[in-house]
Amino acid sequence: MAEHVYKKIELVGTSGTSIEEAVNSAVTKAGQTVHNLRWLEVAEIRAALDGGKVSQWQVTVRIGFTLDDHG
Amino acid sequence: MAEHVYKKIELVGTSGTSIEEAVNSAVTKAGQTVHNLRWLEVAEIRAALDGGKVSQWQVTVRIGFTLDDHG
Amino acid sequence: MAEHVYKKIELVGTSGTSIEEAVNSAVTKAGQTVHNLRWLEVAEIRAALDGGKVSQWQVTVRIGFTLDDHG
Amino acid sequence: MAEHVYKKIELVGTSGTSIEEAVNSAVTKAGQTVHNLRWLEVAEIRAALDGGKVSQWQVTVRIGFTLDDHG
Amino acid sequence: MAEHVYKKIELVGTSGTSIEEAVNSAVTKAGQTVHNLRWLEVAEIRAALDGGKVSQWQVTVRIGFTLDDHG
Amino acid sequence: MAEHVYKKIELVGTSGTSIEEAVNSAVTKAGQTVHNLRWLEVAEIRAALDGGKVSQWQVTVRIGFTLDDHG
Amino acid sequence: MAEHVYKKIELVGTSGTSIEEAVNSAVTKAGQTVHNLRWLEVAEIRAALDGGKVSQWQVTVRIGFTLDDHG
Amino acid sequence: MAEHVYKKIELVGTSGTSIEEAVNSAVTKAGQTVHNLRWLEVAEIRAALDGGKVSQWQVTVRIGFTLDDHG
Amino acid sequence: MAEHVYKKIELVGTSGTSIEEAVNSAVTKAGQTVHNLRWLEVAEIRAALDGGKVSQWQVTVRIGFTLDDHG
Amino acid sequence: MAEHVYKKIELVGTSGTSIEEAVNSAVTKAGQTVHNLRWLEVAEIRAALDGGKVSQWQVTVRIGFTLDDHG
Amino acid sequence: MAEHVYKKIELVGTSGTSIEEAVNSAVTKAGQTVHNLRWLEVAEIRAALDGGKVSQWQVTVRIGFTLDDHG
Amino acid sequence: MAEHVYKKIELVGTSGTSIEEAVNSAVTKAGQTVHNLRWLEVAEIRAALDGGKVSQWQVTVRIGFTLDDHG
Repeated sequence: MAEHVYKKIELVGTSGTSIEEAVNSAVTKAGQTVHNLRWLEVAEIRAALDGGKVSQWQVTVRIGFTLDDHG
Repeated sequence: MAEHVYKKIELVGTSGTSIEEAVNSAVTKAGQTVHNLRWLEVAEIRAALDGGKVSQWQVTVRIGFTLDDHG
Repeated sequence: MAEHVYKKIELVGTSGTSIEEAVNSAVTKAGQTVHNLRWLEVAEIRAALDGGKVSQWQVTVRIGFTLDDHG
Repeated sequence: MAEHVYKKIELVGTSGTSIEEAVNSAVTKAGQTVHNLRWLEVAEIRAALDGGKVSQWQVTVRIGFTLDDHG
Repeated sequence: MAEHVYKKIELVGTSGTSIEEAVNSAVTKAGQTVHNLRWLEVAEIRAALDGGKVSQWQVTVRIGFTLDDHG
Repeated sequence: MAEHVYKKIELVGTSGTSIEEAVNSAVTKAGQTVHNLRWLEVAEIRAALDGGKVSQWQVTVRIGFTLDDHG
Repeated sequence: MAEHVYKKIELVGTSGTSIEEAVNSAVTKAGQTVHNLRWLEVAEIRAALDGGKVSQWQVTVRIGFTLDDHG
Repeated sequence: MAEHVYKKIELVGTSGTSIEEAVNSAVTKAGQTVHNLRWLEVAEIRAALDGGKVSQWQVTVRIGFTLDDHG
Repeated sequence: MAEHVYKKIELVGTSGTSIEEAVNSAVTKAGQTVHNLRWLEVAEIRAALDGGKVSQWQVTVRIGFTLDDHG
Repeated sequence: MAEHVYKKIELVGTSGTSIEEAVNSAVTKAGQTVHNLRWLEVAEIRAALDGGKVSQWQVTVRIGFTLDDHG
Repeated sequence: MAEHVYKKIELVGTSGTSIEEAVNSAVTKAGQTVHNLRWLEVAEIRAALDGGKVSQWQVTVRIGFTLDDHG
Repeated sequence: MAEHVYKKIELVGTSGTSIEEAVNSAVTKAGQTVHNLRWLEVAEIRAALDGGKVSQWQVTVRIGFTLDDHG
C-alpha cells in the first residue's frame, strides 16, 4: 500500500431538496479545483427556514483527497 | 444589522419515509405556535425498528426563531 | 406508528437524598404543567457541598413529551 | 437548602460590540418574561462577518431560572 | 413494563443511493442473525468519492435489540 | 502482568427501582453467556416516563471482559 | 458578590454499595485536607466487576473549593 | 435562496488586549486574501502567560466564506 | 463498488512495550475468530503504572470487518 | 528544546466586569503560589445572574506551568 | 510578543511502521509547500488492516503555521 | 476490595523521540513527589515543529494514584 498523504478541507454544501443533494453540491464544487477526491465525513447538518418550512439544507462536510501536487 | 435575540427549542420530528420528512414534521409543528422560524440544527438521528426494518425515523432538531413577543 | 412530534425541555431537579430523587423532583415539576411526558435523558450530575459533604444533588435532565396542544 | 427545580432555556444574544454585550442582550430579553434568572452557561460563540470584519457577535447561552409559576 | 436487557451492536451500512438506504442495508443484515431489533442511532455519516462524486454512502449505526436468547 | 486482550460489549439494563439496579440487570444478563467480566463504564442514563413519573431506568453500559475463548 | 477564585480537583471515589456512596467517599477524603468545598461535577461512572456482579462503584468527580490559603 | 457552497478555514488570531481583538486579527488577515467572508465560529480560547499574567490571547476561529473563484 | 455491510467490535489490546504493539495484540486476537478485518480506529489510550513507570499500555480500538457469514 | 514536564491545574476565576478579567483573576491567584506559568486554556464560561443581569462572570481555565520544584 | 496570525490545515499522514512515522509523513508533505510550521495536534488515529494485521497507520493531524504570505 | 480514593493530576510530558517517551517523562516526574501511581489516560497528543519536522512530542496525561497521605 503506497504511503500517501491526504488533505481534508471543510465545505458547506447547500440544497433546497435534500441532505444528499447538499453534500453533492459541495463535492461538485471541490472537484472543480481539486482532483483525487477520496472520501468525506458529514460534520454538521443545518437548515435555513423560511415561511415555516425548510428553504435550504446546509451540510458541512470534510472532504479528503490525495495530496500530490496540491498544498 | 438589527440586534435580535433568538430562542432555540428542541423538537423530535418523526416520519416513516425519510430523515428530511422527519425534520419537516418538526418544523411544521413548531410553525403552528411560533412565528419567525429562522434556522435549525440536526442534533440526533434515530429510528424505531419493527419487523426487521425502519418503521419510523426520529430526528432531534434545535429550531431557532426571532424572539419578539415570545418567551 | 402514528407520526408524533415531541418536544424536549431541560430541567434541573434537586434532592438532599439521591440522584434518583433529584430526577424525580424534576419530573414531578414538569408534570404539573405538561402532560404526556414520555422519556428523559440525564445530561449532567452535580452536587452542592456544605460542611464537607453533599448537601444537594443537582441533576440536569432533558424531558421529552408528545406535542399535542403544547408549544 | 430548599429543593428547587430549575429550567434552562437556550437563547442567542447578539451585539455589534462584544461577547459580553451579546450575552447581556439575551439575559435582558429573558428577564422580560421570566423572573428568578439564576445563572447562564455560554454554549457557543459565533459572529457574522461583513465588509471583512465582525458585524455582529452571536452568543448562544443556556439560562437557568427557578421554576415556581413557570413551565 | 417488563425489565428487559438490550444489546447494541455497531454496523456500517452502505448504499450508492441515499443515507436512508445505507441505514436500511445495515438493518437488513442485522435482521438475518438477530431478532427483536428495536431501535437504532446514527453515529456517523461518511461517503466514498469516485470520479468527483459520491460513489457510496457509509453510515455507522448502533442497533439495539432485546436480549433474550442472544449474547 | 499478563498481556490479555479484552472485549467491550454495550448493553442497556433496565429497572423500575434505581440506576444501580438497572446496571446490575445488564451485568447479570451478560454473565449468563460471558465469563471473566472485569469492569463497566456507564455510557448513558435515560428513563421511560409514565403517569408523570419514572417507570423504568434505562442505563447503557459498556462491559469489558477478558477474551480467552470468546470472540 | 465577592470575587473569589475556585480550584477544581479530580478524585475517584469508590463504594461497594451505590454511586452516591462512591461520591461521598471522595468528598470525605477531600475534606480532610481542603476546606471550603463548594460543589462537585460527576465526570465518569465506572464499576469493577467480580463474580459476575458489581464489586465496586468508581465515580470520578471534579470538586470545586474556594482558594484562600490553598494552591 | 441561491445554492452557494461555502468553505471554512481555521485560523488562530492573537492579541495582547482581548478575546474580541484576537478574533478580529484573524478576520483581518483572512480578508487580505479571501473575499466574501460570511461568518465565524470560535473553536478554542487559549492564552500565553508571561510574568504571571496573560501576555497574548490566542483564539482559534473557523471562518466561512462563499466559494466563487476560490478553492 | 459492492454494497457491503461492516461490523465494528471494540477490543482493548495490551503491551508492555508500545502503543502500536498493544493495538497489534488486539488485531491478532480478533483475527483468530473473525476474517476480513478491514480497518480500526483508536478510541482510547491508557496505561497501568507500577513501580513509578508504565507497566502496560492499554489501547481501546474499534475494529471494522466485512459482514459475510458473521453476526 | 529542553524536555520539560508541565502540570495543568484547573481554576475558576470570577469578575463582575468581563470574561478577560475573570481569567485574569484566576491567573493572578495561581501566580501567588506557582511560578513559571506558561499558558492557559478556557474550558467553560458561565455567569451568575442577579436582578435580571450578569452579576459575575465565572470562567474555568486550565493553567499550564513548568514543573521544576513543584508537584 | 508579536501578534501573529496562524493557520491550521488538516492532513492525514500514513506509514506502515508507526504512529510517529505517519505523523512525520504529513509534516514532511506540508513542509514542501508551507513554511513556518509551528505545531501540530493529533486529531485521530486509524489503521488499515490486511491479512489480519496493521498494514498502514493513518493519523489525522492539524498543523499550525505562521501566516505571512500564505492564505 | 478495599475502598480507596484516587486523585488524578494532569501533566504534559515531552520527548524528542516518541509518544511513549513523552508519556514516560511525565510519569517519572510525577513519581518524584507522588507514590502509588496506578494508571494514566492519554488526553491529548501534540508536537512542536521546527525546521519542517517534529522537534518535540507533547503528550497530556491524566495520572491516577491512591490517596493515602496526599491531598
